[in-house]
Amino acid sequence: MRLESGTSVILRVEMDKQVVTFGELVSLIGRQGGDIVAIDVIQPGRKTEIRDLTVSVAEPSIVETMASAVREMKGIHLVNVSDRTFLLHLGGKIQIRSKVPIKNRDDLSRVYTPGVANVCLAIRDDINKSHSLTIRRNTIAVVSDGTAVLGLGDIGPHAAMPVMEGKAMLFKELAGVDAFPICLDTKNTEEIIAIVQALAPTFGGINLEDISSPRCFEIERRLKETLDIPVFHDDQHGTAVVLLAGLINALKIVGKDIRDIKIVVCGIGAAGIACTRMLLAAGVTRLVGVDKEGAIHRDIRYDNEVWNEYARVTNPDNEKGRLAEVIEGADVFIGLSRPRLLSNEDVRKMNPDPIVFAMANPDPEISPEEAGSYVRVYATGRSDFPNQLNNVLAFPGIFRGALDARATAITEAMKLAAAQAIASIVTPEELNEEYIIPSVFNDKVVPAVRRAVVQKAINDGVARKVPSDFRNLD
Amino acid sequence: MRLESGTSVILRVEMDKQVVTFGELVSLIGRQGGDIVAIDVIQPGRKTEIRDLTVSVAEPSIVETMASAVREMKGIHLVNVSDRTFLLHLGGKIQIRSKVPIKNRDDLSRVYTPGVANVCLAIRDDINKSHSLTIRRNTIAVVSDGTAVLGLGDIGPHAAMPVMEGKAMLFKELAGVDAFPICLDTKNTEEIIAIVQALAPTFGGINLEDISSPRCFEIERRLKETLDIPVFHDDQHGTAVVLLAGLINALKIVGKDIRDIKIVVCGIGAAGIACTRMLLAAGVTRLVGVDKEGAIHRDIRYDNEVWNEYARVTNPDNEKGRLAEVIEGADVFIGLSRPRLLSNEDVRKMNPDPIVFAMANPDPEISPEEAGSYVRVYATGRSDFPNQLNNVLAFPGIFRGALDARATAITEAMKLAAAQAIASIVTPEELNEEYIIPSVFNDKVVPAVRRAVVQKAINDGVARKVPSDFRNLD
Repeated sequence: MRLESGTSVILRVEMDKQVVTFGELVSLIGRQGGDIVAIDVIQPGRKTEIRDLTVSVAEPSIVETMASAVREMKGIHLVNVSDRTFLLHLGGKIQIRSKVPIKNRDDLSRVYTPGVANVCLAIRDDINKSHSLTIRRNTIAVVSDGTAVLGLGDIGPHAAMPVMEGKAMLFKELAGVDAFPICLDTKNTEEIIAIVQALAPTFGGINLEDISSPRCFEIERRLKETLDIPVFHDDQHGTAVVLLAGLINALKIVGKDIRDIKIVVCGIGAAGIACTRMLLAAGVTRLVGVDKEGAIHRDIRYDNEVWNEYARVTNPDNEKGRLAEVIEGADVFIGLSRPRLLSNEDVRKMNPDPIVFAMANPDPEISPEEAGSYVRVYATGRSDFPNQLNNVLAFPGIFRGALDARATAITEAMKLAAAQAIASIVTPEELNEEYIIPSVFNDKVVPAVRRAVVQKAINDGVARKVPSDFRNLD
Repeated sequence: MRLESGTSVILRVEMDKQVVTFGELVSLIGRQGGDIVAIDVIQPGRKTEIRDLTVSVAEPSIVETMASAVREMKGIHLVNVSDRTFLLHLGGKIQIRSKVPIKNRDDLSRVYTPGVANVCLAIRDDINKSHSLTIRRNTIAVVSDGTAVLGLGDIGPHAAMPVMEGKAMLFKELAGVDAFPICLDTKNTEEIIAIVQALAPTFGGINLEDISSPRCFEIERRLKETLDIPVFHDDQHGTAVVLLAGLINALKIVGKDIRDIKIVVCGIGAAGIACTRMLLAAGVTRLVGVDKEGAIHRDIRYDNEVWNEYARVTNPDNEKGRLAEVIEGADVFIGLSRPRLLSNEDVRKMNPDPIVFAMANPDPEISPEEAGSYVRVYATGRSDFPNQLNNVLAFPGIFRGALDARATAITEAMKLAAAQAIASIVTPEELNEEYIIPSVFNDKVVPAVRRAVVQKAINDGVARKVPSDFRNLD
């Protein structure tokens, strides 16, 4: 079993009390480097007893030797060893709850037959009523095929479930959105499109997640065209929204205008492309994309059709060469690629007050140490450095707003407004090099993003409903 | 809007207090035949005020005239009129809940990145772990295409949602099973099969619901063959289980042996076929199926292939003719067809102590009045007559048992055992002509069905887990 570092494990032990004392077991665990922090008696007994011992360990490596020592102890049967994260996942992390109890026949006749028939007929006669009379009003699907999960790659739909469940939790805990995880046992683009289309009557929105590039583009595009509920690939657009939010605030610190700066985006996959589109929409004009083959320009015909389109709309000076060359004179580096691609030497070629967003997972394109003091604003996706650019800032509020406005789509304007709303949470007094973006636990974020998203949905004509707090009473 | 009879409605009114008094409004509603039973002030104000008035009405027809009168009253704006059933359905009837809160970064790192990665990798390395480390352990899908919903027919996937949500509530409230409703926007058999196959990694079981015949047979058969989780079409098997449970107890009253009786099953659709199979498995030998064309026998070649197979395994004497003929000498009539197909005259041709299960929806094949005292045991699917044969008695406990045993399938033996378990809840002392089946609110039902189902799953070798209460601890 893989263990996180610096965490605790739970040993379930069956003790023969005639052979061994609990004190002897505690001593053994202590000698092995474990610290018992909690004890639960699972099955008491006069002769044998089953207990769960929560043991804190400084080093994961200790666990195996400690467990072996416990196993060899006379009178002790080590039933199992679990770490707290695994225990938290037992049976999954979300559940379905009824909103009203069914205590008697009267309740039953309202929520089920015969009363429910009238509600069904009302929806049959006006399909739009499904947005108010069913879970559609507040429920979205978190859909993945498990092909690009976290930094783990194609781990399959079963293994992707814990991530999608975690995402569903975040939707609910942060924004009150009911999100149900759906992991599909197919990688076929057409099948995924057909399935999500068929699932649409159940949901008020679709959050696509961890679907590998380039299939994710086609899937999202076709679903957007055919469905009248919002479809949002979070790996693309959530990332883009949060990066733009960070950039808006970073530019305030260095006093540069977004229309004047040169940006190098490294890693032109799904996130890199979405991020580029959003930056262009936000007013950026000088942007160069770089991937394995160097700067993406207009003098090559790429196999990847998306890159040809990318070349058409970026790189106004048609710059060529590797990252080390095009980084020259850049104001901003945005990395969505691989660890350690950017050197201190590269950074030193950038314009004064460089901004570096190094988002590679799990290790950034350049470490904070190597970026050094020459970089003015440094941000990553990690929680253990300052300025964590985390999608969790975007997706809960975006879908909260989209559902509240019963939006048919999430438009570019809605995403831009979401980015501005996230940036606005950091006040001018608070803003500094190490605080360009609010914490994911800042409870002002979701209401601000929601408000911005609802307003733009109304402006863009994609809102099917004006929430009560947007109605002008009198 | 359609209204249930004898219920209450809620009027939301905006009052201009300078023009009209609340007393005047109360008087008007009273004169119209409404009785105000509750008042909620939604938006108080000095000049105008919004209130919800819960008004009890004896007759649904009153509502429209009452609403018109209120609308015409000076100083009153009638915002809307809702009946309680509709209000109960607003926003849907189920929600998603996190099992653990996410209060801080430490929580986040366990349920989501980076901690979740270890759980994902554990499942990638051993896919069976998805049954313990994800919601699969306790979650099933309630899947419909909306083609055969209640007695309403093909009302479409959007309109079917309130029923599937109600079903999900029953799973949770009665058996603790997390069930998620999925209504598919396709009627294509192959598409439905492919979709449910693709959805399987998310669920520990599939409850098919309200899918029209004959597509439901092919869909269920193919899914059973290809999936390693239980697939159960409730309209077929839930009905069959509950009918058999009722029959077991009815036969005790009349003192007949199941192997000796003649049964006429009327209505050879999905439920009729499943019911027939279950009766044959339970030991019935003399069973004749009747549909529009009369008794199903072996001297015709039917267009419906399922009927040719049906003819091969039933009707040992190859009886022909219409219901009125083959009912002669029957001990049991089971109707799964249309209202008022069976006459008092037909019933009088049956053997002494006839048993009549008239399940047609919403009105039975013969009313209790017409069945008269000649019928010894009479049961229907309705809650307003004695002996309600309701699927709600079967499906919660069956899936509770299947999930607890991590069953790969629901076998014939598991269904038979479920029927016997339901029948056994009625004690010999309690058993009488008007009490052959327990109430859906009898809390002994689910545990008894679960126990029977788990035991048979173990016996049949389809259990992947032995629940702790089935383990022999010395």
